[in-house]
Amino acid sequence: MAPTGDNVVVSNMNLERMLSMKGGKGDASYANNSQAQAQHALSMLHLLEETLDGVQLNSPEVPFGVVDLGCSSGSNTIFIVDVIIKHMIKRYEALGYEAPEFSAFFSDLPSNDFNTLFQLLPPLANNGGSMEECLAANGHRSYFAAGVPGSFHRRLFPARSIDVFYSAFSLHWLSQVPEIVLDKRSKAYNKGGVFIHGANESTAKAYKQQFQTDLAGFLRSRSQEMKRGGSMFLLCLGRTSSVDPTDQGGAGLLFGTHFQDAWDDLVQEGLITSEKRDNFNIPVYAPSLQDFKEVVEADGSFAINKLEVFRGGSPLVVNCPDDAAEVGRALANSCRAVSGVLVDAHIGDRLGEELFSRVERRAMSHAKELLEKLQFFHIVASLSLA
Amino acid sequence: MAPTGDNVVVSNMNLERMLSMKGGKGDASYANNSQAQAQHALSMLHLLEETLDGVQLNSPEVPFGVVDLGCSSGSNTIFIVDVIIKHMIKRYEALGYEAPEFSAFFSDLPSNDFNTLFQLLPPLANNGGSMEECLAANGHRSYFAAGVPGSFHRRLFPARSIDVFYSAFSLHWLSQVPEIVLDKRSKAYNKGGVFIHGANESTAKAYKQQFQTDLAGFLRSRSQEMKRGGSMFLLCLGRTSSVDPTDQGGAGLLFGTHFQDAWDDLVQEGLITSEKRDNFNIPVYAPSLQDFKEVVEADGSFAINKLEVFRGGSPLVVNCPDDAAEVGRALANSCRAVSGVLVDAHIGDRLGEELFSRVERRAMSHAKELLEKLQFFHIVASLSLA
Repeated sequence: MAPTGDNVVVSNMNLERMLSMKGGKGDASYANNSQAQAQHALSMLHLLEETLDGVQLNSPEVPFGVVDLGCSSGSNTIFIVDVIIKHMIKRYEALGYEAPEFSAFFSDLPSNDFNTLFQLLPPLANNGGSMEECLAANGHRSYFAAGVPGSFHRRLFPARSIDVFYSAFSLHWLSQVPEIVLDKRSKAYNKGGVFIHGANESTAKAYKQQFQTDLAGFLRSRSQEMKRGGSMFLLCLGRTSSVDPTDQGGAGLLFGTHFQDAWDDLVQEGLITSEKRDNFNIPVYAPSLQDFKEVVEADGSFAINKLEVFRGGSPLVVNCPDDAAEVGRALANSCRAVSGVLVDAHIGDRLGEELFSRVERRAMSHAKELLEKLQFFHIVASLSLA
Repeated sequence: MAPTGDNVVVSNMNLERMLSMKGGKGDASYANNSQAQAQHALSMLHLLEETLDGVQLNSPEVPFGVVDLGCSSGSNTIFIVDVIIKHMIKRYEALGYEAPEFSAFFSDLPSNDFNTLFQLLPPLANNGGSMEECLAANGHRSYFAAGVPGSFHRRLFPARSIDVFYSAFSLHWLSQVPEIVLDKRSKAYNKGGVFIHGANESTAKAYKQQFQTDLAGFLRSRSQEMKRGGSMFLLCLGRTSSVDPTDQGGAGLLFGTHFQDAWDDLVQEGLITSEKRDNFNIPVYAPSLQDFKEVVEADGSFAINKLEVFRGGSPLVVNCPDDAAEVGRALANSCRAVSGVLVDAHIGDRLGEELFSRVERRAMSHAKELLEKLQFFHIVASLSLA
């Protein structure tokens, strides 16, 4: 059963063609609201480099393929791809080998703003010449770039063509809201709620199953696409409560409190029906280590080099922590950059505006608490073909 | 010297980051004004297939790479890539071989509307399963897809990674307006003119040199990227007047008559200065067979399987040839779909609107003549590594 509204019908089937971080370069765009993701990724660089050190070096005649899955449209992905390629070049150089040519694939759903991403790419300094000329030139990229539109729950690349897969802040996105969560007749119907956080046991189970099905599809596809000797570095929202998925930690605080309350405001003010709210759910699931591990082991294609949960930090990047208005704005923008496209598709732009202004107001009056308590934990996995 | 305006400065250096067919899905978009290109490409399919029959089949373990260079943002590129891949699958099947996995790369400048293109792509019917499942599913694509932003005058792909290059209606676009054409102090200054058609000899020579330099860069890059045994099919605007490049044929009628007159209108009406007009030139050159051949031979990497000039047809697709208003609108839209982005960048959207409304009015009063005389000729080249 699909969530339907008065004037907007959003079928779950279409989530894959619609979900995206907010494109463009505006105030609530992902490009301008992903500094926290940048910081969290930076703090994990040493772990990424550990993974890269395990990648097998092939002949320089064979192009080296690097992929960012769920790249979105900001500059974080360009930064990380650059880190990966520079690290690999150093490894080749350290062994006295010539470096191969590099291909970087930026992948996300077809609804991602690839136009903005492509315009952020530095030019390739190359006049039909060698890759060395390229590397010599500052402010230029040392790799061929391509954008790959599609769902990472399925195949995206030819078999045995990729050396390094990277994915950050993406695997906690589900391919769809579990259908029974939106089905009034089901025990798993998430009545009153717009997220798994604080939901009933059946709702939680449906979310968990969806996460595990999705991750299984992801791993099955990557196991076919990865070259022997390649590696994969994955980072996604995780939770520390090992058993109970209805305590979603930082994600719970982001989508389960002020965001939930703002939806309730719209209902109470008569701007939307309660059914309209109930037909909306955020397709996010922060797994525990155990949830994640079960899928990797059931798939069986990958050896686990590392699988740990880390304290990532706050999603709120503010200049003046004492300025409650700034904190409120930061929370609303963070929330909107990642969920705004779904919200607008469900209730339209105008009501979306109303919703996020309420998120902002509510967050403002809880600024101090948010700064103290809103902490993300991340699952970090380093995997190679078994 | 770069073309500069009162409020807009368009450096030639930036042409590469700016030039594009008109994106989106509006009335003047390329997606909605490329039926003529579709028809002309269709009429050349047998020649494309001849080229494909010459491609060497490798082991099915090796992915097969297909590229459309200058793909733009309509559905023509998706159609052609499908034709190419289906033809290659048939060839594998005819020999009783298993077909390899296919990768299609859609390439254009970073300013191309890749978002619109990606949303037109059929989904890949593949659940981590085999390519055969994919091929079985109707309305789905049988290849992995990627968008590659960059100039085809330079490298875009790793060495020896591509089996088939295709490029249609793109190679007549120059990488820049030759600088001396915009330089008042130069004999090649194109005073009064916005195109090579009807220009003086020095202007014409500068355009021709730019075309040949650009094509040389294109060939040098492709010769490195193409696999041994691969082939390339190129189609671009050409002219039948072998010696005199100032007779640009169909391109001349499109950009050298009503379009030129409309610019003169803006000057005479005081809407822009004559200098503003003179600082604008259309970076297009329709080569003769000889112009083209000289470059291929000087490069020396490619053997010419075919190099001919064909009558392509009219760029005007109209339902009622007797309806002068429709003919006028068709010419203005065709003209705008391919040059509108450059025009708007030079004089702004509002004056761009004024310009094309004058193109429409002038074309309307010459509807009959346009339908009779506006014919494109195309150069078709089929090349493989020497």
